[in-house]
Amino acid sequence: MAHKIPTRLYLAEDEIPRYWYNIRADMREKPDPILHPGTLRPASFQDLTQVFCKESAAQELDGETRLVEIPQGLQDFYRAYRPSPLVRAYFLEKALDTPAEIYYKHEGTNTSGSHKLNSAAAQAFYAKEEGLSALATETGAGQWGSALAMACAFFGLGLTVYMVKISAEQKPYRKALMETYGAELIPSPSDTTEAGRRILSQDPHTSGSLGCAISEAIEKAVSTKSCRYVLGSVLNHVLLHQSIIGQEVKAAFDKYCIKPDIIIGCAGGGSNLGGLIAPFMGEKLHGASRTRFIAVEPASCPSFTRGRYAYDFGDTAKTTPLIKMYTLGSGFIPSANHAGGLRYHGMNPTLSKLYHDGLLEARAETQRDVFDAAAAFAKTEGILPAPESAHAIKAAVDEALACKKAGEKKTILFGLTGTGYFDMTAYMSYNAKTMTDYIPTNADLEKGFASIPPQPEP
Amino acid sequence: MAHKIPTRLYLAEDEIPRYWYNIRADMREKPDPILHPGTLRPASFQDLTQVFCKESAAQELDGETRLVEIPQGLQDFYRAYRPSPLVRAYFLEKALDTPAEIYYKHEGTNTSGSHKLNSAAAQAFYAKEEGLSALATETGAGQWGSALAMACAFFGLGLTVYMVKISAEQKPYRKALMETYGAELIPSPSDTTEAGRRILSQDPHTSGSLGCAISEAIEKAVSTKSCRYVLGSVLNHVLLHQSIIGQEVKAAFDKYCIKPDIIIGCAGGGSNLGGLIAPFMGEKLHGASRTRFIAVEPASCPSFTRGRYAYDFGDTAKTTPLIKMYTLGSGFIPSANHAGGLRYHGMNPTLSKLYHDGLLEARAETQRDVFDAAAAFAKTEGILPAPESAHAIKAAVDEALACKKAGEKKTILFGLTGTGYFDMTAYMSYNAKTMTDYIPTNADLEKGFASIPPQPEP
Repeated sequence: MAHKIPTRLYLAEDEIPRYWYNIRADMREKPDPILHPGTLRPASFQDLTQVFCKESAAQELDGETRLVEIPQGLQDFYRAYRPSPLVRAYFLEKALDTPAEIYYKHEGTNTSGSHKLNSAAAQAFYAKEEGLSALATETGAGQWGSALAMACAFFGLGLTVYMVKISAEQKPYRKALMETYGAELIPSPSDTTEAGRRILSQDPHTSGSLGCAISEAIEKAVSTKSCRYVLGSVLNHVLLHQSIIGQEVKAAFDKYCIKPDIIIGCAGGGSNLGGLIAPFMGEKLHGASRTRFIAVEPASCPSFTRGRYAYDFGDTAKTTPLIKMYTLGSGFIPSANHAGGLRYHGMNPTLSKLYHDGLLEARAETQRDVFDAAAAFAKTEGILPAPESAHAIKAAVDEALACKKAGEKKTILFGLTGTGYFDMTAYMSYNAKTMTDYIPTNADLEKGFASIPPQPEP
Repeated sequence: MAHKIPTRLYLAEDEIPRYWYNIRADMREKPDPILHPGTLRPASFQDLTQVFCKESAAQELDGETRLVEIPQGLQDFYRAYRPSPLVRAYFLEKALDTPAEIYYKHEGTNTSGSHKLNSAAAQAFYAKEEGLSALATETGAGQWGSALAMACAFFGLGLTVYMVKISAEQKPYRKALMETYGAELIPSPSDTTEAGRRILSQDPHTSGSLGCAISEAIEKAVSTKSCRYVLGSVLNHVLLHQSIIGQEVKAAFDKYCIKPDIIIGCAGGGSNLGGLIAPFMGEKLHGASRTRFIAVEPASCPSFTRGRYAYDFGDTAKTTPLIKMYTLGSGFIPSANHAGGLRYHGMNPTLSKLYHDGLLEARAETQRDVFDAAAAFAKTEGILPAPESAHAIKAAVDEALACKKAGEKKTILFGLTGTGYFDMTAYMSYNAKTMTDYIPTNADLEKGFASIPPQPEP
C-alpha cells in the first residue's frame, strides 16, 4: 500500500524546532503564582534559587516570554535522540476498523525510556553552565532518575538520587542502570540526612515515600557546596522543556498539513501532557483551532477528575512552596498502582488553570482497562508501552471507536511517553490475571483533602 | 555547531531499500553446500521443508539471486520500526579526540530490543503466506524469542518457544515480554517432547542447554500439524533478511557520499555481522572498494579466531544438517558469558567462507574490556548497549584510537545490535567489579574439536 502520509513522519535536521514554547505567555488569565510557604507571598527568584538552579528559577517565574531558544549545547544533545518518532498508527486503525486517523509521538526510544530526558538534559545543561558540580533529586518509579543520570553523565555533573526504598528493592535493574551512568543511589529514607534520620527513628522499617525522598534530596542539595535540587515534573519550567514534544509534532503536522481534532496525554504531574499539547493549546487560546485536549489519569489517583483546585504543598513533608493546583491533598496515599509515574497527588499549575477554565478535559481509567489497551497496542503496533503511556492509548482507542460509531473521520494524536521494559512485573501480574484496581472512596478522598493547608487570603 | 553530516542520517520513506541483498550471488567461490546428515549429500528443498517453511528453505538454497524483493506486507511491517537510526557518533569522536569519523547503525529501538526482528518478521510473514498456523523455536538469551513473539502476534500465528531453563528462571522479564505477545513459553528441557523427556530422565535437575531447546523445538514443529521450525541466526536465509541493515546504511551513505573504510560487527551466529556488511562486501568482491571488515567475538567463545573450518552440526544433539563453518565443535561448552547471544559454537557458512578466503578479519575480546567500552559509550552517546553490541564498540574505539595515533581520518561504521535493558544483571556485576573472564585453554578447545564429526569425502 502506498500511503500519502508515511508511517513515520520525519523532520530533517534543519526542520527540528529550536525553540521551546511557553504556553503561559498566551494565557489571558495566568496561573496563580506559587507562594513562599512561610510568608504566603509570591515566591521570588531569590527564594527559588536557594533550592533550584538559576535558569530553572527564572523560567519558573517567567510567564511572559513566548518562545525560549534552546541553547546550542542542548540542541546538540537533543539531536542524539530527537526528533522522537511521530508514527501514524496504520495497524491500530486497521485493527479497530475506524475511520479515525491516529498518530502517536513516541518518547521511549532513548535509553532512559521516557520523555523525562528532555527536561533532565535541560536542567543538567543549565547547572553545568552555572558552574555547579552536582545535582540531587529523588525518584519513584525510576524514569526521572534514569534520565537525570544519563544527562549528568553527559554534561559531567555528579548526581545523588534518593530512590524510594521499596522501589530500590523492587527495581534493582533501574538502580543498576542509574549506577552504570555514574549516579550515587541512596534508598530513602536514609541516615544521610536529618529528614531521613527523623523518619527512620519514628519507623525503622518504613518502605519510604516520594515525599520523604524529596525532603532528603532538597536537604542534600542545600547542604552541599555547588549542588542544587532538580525536579522532573509538576513545575512550569519542566513543562517548558517538555514543549519540545509538541513543537516537533506541530512542525511535522504542518509539513504534512495535518490538523489534530483530539490530543490525548496521560497525566501524573503533567510534564508530558503539558509538553505535548503546548503549541496546539496556544492555537486554541488564540481562537485558531477547535482541538479537544484530554488528560487521562489513573482511577486510583484522580487529581483532575475528583481533586480540589487549591493551594497545596508539592511534597508530603510540606516543605515546598505552595502551588495552586488540582490536588488530592499532599497527605493522600494512592493505592499501589503499577503506573508509578502517575501516582502524584497534584498537577502542574498551568494545566490546572487550563482545566479549571474548561480548555482541557480529563478522565480517569482503571488499571485493568489500561493494560487491556496496552497489550492490544503491543500486538498491533509492536511497541510495549509503559503503563503510564497506556492510559493515553486507552482513551485514544475509545475516541477512535466513537468515531467508528459516528462514522466520523477525526484525527487523533496521543503521547506515548515511554516503554515498559522496566515494568514487566506489572505485565506479569496482568498476564496472570492477578491485577487489581482500587478506586478511592469519597471517605479516602476526604482524608486526603484534610491535609490541604488553609487557603491564603485572595 | 552546524554539521555537514547530521547526527542522524535519515532516509525518507521512498528512499528505504525494497530489496534484500544475497551476498552469495557475488561470490566467485560459493560457500560449501549444507549436507544431509544421513546421506552426506547436499540437502534438498524437500529435506529442508520437513523442518523449515518453504520460502526459507528456497532462500537457504539460493546462491544465485542477487536482489530479493521484500514482500509488500513485510515492507509495511518494517516501516513501523525501520529504517533504524544511523547515527554519527560525534560525542564519542570528541571524547576519544580522534580524527576518525564514527557511525553506528542502531537496531535496538524496537520493543524486542535487537536486530533479530528483521528475520523474525520475514519468517513469520512467509509462514502466514504458506498457510501455516504456528511456529516453534528456541531461545537462549531471549532476544530471538522476543522478536519472534512480536512478529507472530502481528501476523496472527501461534508460537511455542522453548527457553533454556536457566534463562527462563534468571530472566523472568524476558519470559513475561514474550507472554505479553501471546507466545507459549516452555522451559527446556520439558516433558512435552521425547527429546526433553530423554534428557530429564538422564538428569532431572539439568539447567538446560540451547542444543536441547533446539531439539525440542524441532520435534514440536515436525510433530504438530501446520507448524514449522524457525531459526534466528547461522543460516543463509537469516543473513539475507538481515541484509536490510546494510542496505539501509548503504542507501544513507550513498546519499551523503560517505565511503566506510572499516565496518565492524559483533559475531555470534553471524546474522547481524552478515546483514550489516552485505552490500559493502559485495562492492569489495567486485574490486570496487578496499573496505576492511572486522568480526568481533568473545574471547570465551572464539569460533573464528581459534576454531576449525569444518563440517559440523548446528546443535549439540547432532540432529541438524551438516554445515561447513568455523566451529569450536558442537560439544564445546563456553563458560558463562553475559553476552548470551554470542555463545554459539559455530558461525554462518557464508561468513566462514569469506573469513577463510581472507576477505573478513576477526578478533576476540574479553568481557571486562567490552564492558569498559559499553559503559563509556553509554555515558557519551547516551545509549546503554547490549553486551553483544559492546564487542563491536570495543573494536570501533580501538580503531578510532589507532587513527588518532596515526593521524588518519578514517570512516568507521559499527553495528549496534541492541539495547541492554534485559542484561542489567551483567551491568550489576560490572558495576560491582565482580565480573570475570574465562578464556578457554587449548585443552578446552581440543575437547570441543573432538565432537566435530568425521569430514565427508571431498
